[in-house]
Amino acid sequence: MPRLIALDWGSSQLRAWLLGDGGAVLAARSSADGASTLSGGAPAFDAALQSLAGDWLVQDLPVLACGMVGSAHGWREARYVACPADLLALQQHLVKVDTRSGATLHIVPGLIDDPGDEPAGGTPDVMRGEETQLVGLLALQPALADRACVLMPGTHSKWVDVQQGRIAGFRTRMTGELYAVLRQHSVLGRLMPAADGGECAEAFEAGVAAARRGLGADLSGQLFAVRTLGLTGRWPAAALPDYLSGLLIGHELLAGLQPDGAPLALVGDAGLCRRYEHALRLFDIEPAAVLGNTAIAGLWQLAVQAQLCT
Amino acid sequence: MPRLIALDWGSSQLRAWLLGDGGAVLAARSSADGASTLSGGAPAFDAALQSLAGDWLVQDLPVLACGMVGSAHGWREARYVACPADLLALQQHLVKVDTRSGATLHIVPGLIDDPGDEPAGGTPDVMRGEETQLVGLLALQPALADRACVLMPGTHSKWVDVQQGRIAGFRTRMTGELYAVLRQHSVLGRLMPAADGGECAEAFEAGVAAARRGLGADLSGQLFAVRTLGLTGRWPAAALPDYLSGLLIGHELLAGLQPDGAPLALVGDAGLCRRYEHALRLFDIEPAAVLGNTAIAGLWQLAVQAQLCT
Repeated sequence: MPRLIALDWGSSQLRAWLLGDGGAVLAARSSADGASTLSGGAPAFDAALQSLAGDWLVQDLPVLACGMVGSAHGWREARYVACPADLLALQQHLVKVDTRSGATLHIVPGLIDDPGDEPAGGTPDVMRGEETQLVGLLALQPALADRACVLMPGTHSKWVDVQQGRIAGFRTRMTGELYAVLRQHSVLGRLMPAADGGECAEAFEAGVAAARRGLGADLSGQLFAVRTLGLTGRWPAAALPDYLSGLLIGHELLAGLQPDGAPLALVGDAGLCRRYEHALRLFDIEPAAVLGNTAIAGLWQLAVQAQLCT
Repeated sequence: MPRLIALDWGSSQLRAWLLGDGGAVLAARSSADGASTLSGGAPAFDAALQSLAGDWLVQDLPVLACGMVGSAHGWREARYVACPADLLALQQHLVKVDTRSGATLHIVPGLIDDPGDEPAGGTPDVMRGEETQLVGLLALQPALADRACVLMPGTHSKWVDVQQGRIAGFRTRMTGELYAVLRQHSVLGRLMPAADGGECAEAFEAGVAAARRGLGADLSGQLFAVRTLGLTGRWPAAALPDYLSGLLIGHELLAGLQPDGAPLALVGDAGLCRRYEHALRLFDIEPAAVLGNTAIAGLWQLAVQAQLCT
């Protein structure tokens, strides 16, 4: 029996699940109506939701959404909750929106890690959507709640410091976006084949090794080697994307891995997680857990906590 | 009286000068027929030269060119000379090309700094065009020949280690291209105004300071702050390009500056040099020399050494 309409409404995609008892997935749908693709404000969001899940909305079910739908340019802004943040408290800050179907949409707020104007001069960081994945992760793997470093690789990788069930802080690293813009728009892509072919593990490992040799500094200098290694025939064109990937992931790991040895959890796309596991092995690190997208589990957990469903 | 036709034939532009006694510029012209814009091989290059300087070519003058015209995809390949390289020896490796005008074109080779398969696993680096600017720099500022660090900022900044009149080695850092692709094609550009406005010195200095605080590591993490500093209103949109510029130049200086205090020479576009001088002042470093494009002086010097003209 359907209990909840769960939405992961990101920048480029809207994904919807009809969840039953215990959060079991009864049905799944998606559309390209991501928050950054919709112009026209609230009516456009309302229409996109109606279009994808109109037949679910008439069933008088609670609706819970996470992601960019709650940004300042989304349907309605759900203001960031500040770190250190108790994930159990996220449900206290859900933002309600009336939809034209009569159903009430609840939006999960994002998190902000803002050091303010402290003397060390740190910079603020934000997430939207990943906080819900973190709720799901800790529901599925409660042993991690006490102490964990959660790495969510992607366009904007998130590195999250979990301590005693709270999000102590986090840091975003633009590894995926750097890879994409350098491959598509910089001189580094010119020598590469148009499409990614078979993977070259050796080139990937050489990229990670170069990052380690440089102690994670001089990225702009090490990047140019992607070109010169191709120009001089040291690596074939087909291997250059993997060298670039290894270099960028190596720099990310050098910056993000903490010496305290907190258990590392990898959460994200399976192919990407394999790539990070490969790099981590070169650092002699074995993740304590590797999970796919945990947003569904997180949305269910938050809905139960907020007593939207039981 | 005309003595030499000097060409700086880069990727995106062809620049030509008619030089008289002592290398004095008698006339200057340029076209958009850069080496990477020309398809059709040698005939296309020949036609581009004829089109820009046909009336000069009939005067029976020597013709000397530097830059991408000598690359594997240029008019004819002038193979790299290996570092450590004696700049005076470049003229021994000029490559001759017959043009349909009857004049002979001489192409200056580029330089390669290739550590080979040494255990430390360094990566090769290359330059084309900058070697000629280095010849010009040392002709204009002979005191630097004994020992200098030459910084040539740009799309692909070059950092050159000059020792006893030779190029001991060099390193390319992609600062300018990173700035351009991140501004135009990444999420960081979305909050920025379309065109660069007035400069914000404070934001530039804050970017340099962030790079120093991070000791030149974690660039992909520090880059995301360009977005969050805008999102949280810490910097206005108009200041974000300068913060990004300061961050990238700060990382470049941290990677390139050597502790031995060799005199630093800045060679390049005047506006860009001012920006680097600004950043260097924050490191308490005063350049020993700041020069514009020294390619003309270098082409003249090489032509005299090769006895193409006197």
